[in-house]
Amino acid sequence: MAGLSILARAEAAQRRVHAALAGAVGNTDEAVARLQQAMRYSVLGGGKRLRPLLVYVTGEALGAHPGQLDAPAVAVELIHSYSLIHDDLPAMDDDDLRRGRPTCHRQFDEATAILAGDALQVLAFACLAADPAPAAERVAMIALLATASGTAGMAGGQAIDLGAVGRNLTAAEVENMHRLKTGALIQASVLLAAARRPDLRSAERARLAEFGATLGVAFQIVDDILDVEGDPRLLGKTVGGDEARRKPTYPAVVGLPASYARAAELHAAALAALEPFGAPAALLRWLAGYIVDRSH
Amino acid sequence: MAGLSILARAEAAQRRVHAALAGAVGNTDEAVARLQQAMRYSVLGGGKRLRPLLVYVTGEALGAHPGQLDAPAVAVELIHSYSLIHDDLPAMDDDDLRRGRPTCHRQFDEATAILAGDALQVLAFACLAADPAPAAERVAMIALLATASGTAGMAGGQAIDLGAVGRNLTAAEVENMHRLKTGALIQASVLLAAARRPDLRSAERARLAEFGATLGVAFQIVDDILDVEGDPRLLGKTVGGDEARRKPTYPAVVGLPASYARAAELHAAALAALEPFGAPAALLRWLAGYIVDRSH
Repeated sequence: MAGLSILARAEAAQRRVHAALAGAVGNTDEAVARLQQAMRYSVLGGGKRLRPLLVYVTGEALGAHPGQLDAPAVAVELIHSYSLIHDDLPAMDDDDLRRGRPTCHRQFDEATAILAGDALQVLAFACLAADPAPAAERVAMIALLATASGTAGMAGGQAIDLGAVGRNLTAAEVENMHRLKTGALIQASVLLAAARRPDLRSAERARLAEFGATLGVAFQIVDDILDVEGDPRLLGKTVGGDEARRKPTYPAVVGLPASYARAAELHAAALAALEPFGAPAALLRWLAGYIVDRSH
Repeated sequence: MAGLSILARAEAAQRRVHAALAGAVGNTDEAVARLQQAMRYSVLGGGKRLRPLLVYVTGEALGAHPGQLDAPAVAVELIHSYSLIHDDLPAMDDDDLRRGRPTCHRQFDEATAILAGDALQVLAFACLAADPAPAAERVAMIALLATASGTAGMAGGQAIDLGAVGRNLTAAEVENMHRLKTGALIQASVLLAAARRPDLRSAERARLAEFGATLGVAFQIVDDILDVEGDPRLLGKTVGGDEARRKPTYPAVVGLPASYARAAELHAAALAALEPFGAPAALLRWLAGYIVDRSH
């Protein structure tokens, strides 16, 4: 750990991914300056960088070098950024604010926001394809991220979310939605780092898949809980938005106590999945705890 | 788990097996089915399949087998389909009809159309990543398609198009827009086929890049011409749409005779670029002629 506190290391990882993201969405072509400006506005406008952090911290637990992890860290955050832009659109959640600033379509315009999301999604794959990693590792990362982003992952989860507004879902249905909409990309963050270690045994890879899947659902249940009783000053947005929009959430279906219990259960399952990784996974365990216990 | 009741444990096991089963049998959620229906509606609803045709015919000219060309042919058409869905959206061109049928957002809804486009784009990369080709060829194809789709290609061209409505562009500016918005994906169709022949000399690859680039701009100039004086019955849409929307087109800037002349000039340049490929490229030459002389 070289004397650095965990928080300082997290900040260092955040700075690292910010610089890499700035490079990825660089403004070099005058003709498309406005589009790139919208991309930069959304990608570089803050955020917890949780997914890149997961890539770096998982990679460190597996003995990968940070330089091997920049491309997957950037790619997963580009996909996340694009999904926020499109989710905020008038036809979707119709949000005016994101991280305390106007959403992309409010700051620019709707057409530019759609296009910026489109271009950020494809940039994620361009980044992975351009990485100096062996071609087989690049293909493995691209396949992982594509699956996590498509109908079997994030896009599928968003479709369930859209179709579920105002309907009564069961707890299992909400959990399935969370597994796809949020969990798939969280899990992909873990598995992208694992892809940089092709020598990993398949049992270890399966453990990491289990860790990422359980952590991903726990993350979204905590998000649901924070929308009910979080501190708006810490969250940077108003609370109660899910209920106002009649969005299906875990607390709405099972109540707050059972939601806390389920998050704790998933947290325990995530930690159990990490058991074979021993001491090198200490920071990854801390990050899992931070994700479940966070206040914003 | 010691403190949990048997019922709670049974429920946890049920949730776990539900999630595992859902993963095993594919997501049968109605909302995901609706998203996939929108994707099928747009992809399988006809179209000239010009880009896949270019992939196959270029591949044949280079001695590749059709089986090697399925993935790139599918991928490039998925990208084209997604771009049509997003271009038709109310915030973009606001079109109600596409190929004589309601556009995706009219047939389904706007949110589903945005999401269907997003999911089709990522499906293109998933298809290329899953191809049995050597990893290096897959990465080369993914990099090509990503570049052609992003800010340096199709998305950049669409941004120029959006920003140019009602403005006066020069012929060179219109041609640059066409090169990005339409030409990049046409060129990619040619280069994707060439990627299946890694033994190709770089001079030959450069010739094919030149062929694809010139053909792509010629294709769009012909499209502009057909929008002015094409037969609506053959086109399956009304003519004059570009002018009504004050879209920058080649005929609007230089007039029809000069547009015909420029298309013919680009056609000749495309054929000249194919010169070293001799007799095996006969069908490719015919296809280039069809693209420039077509009536719809």
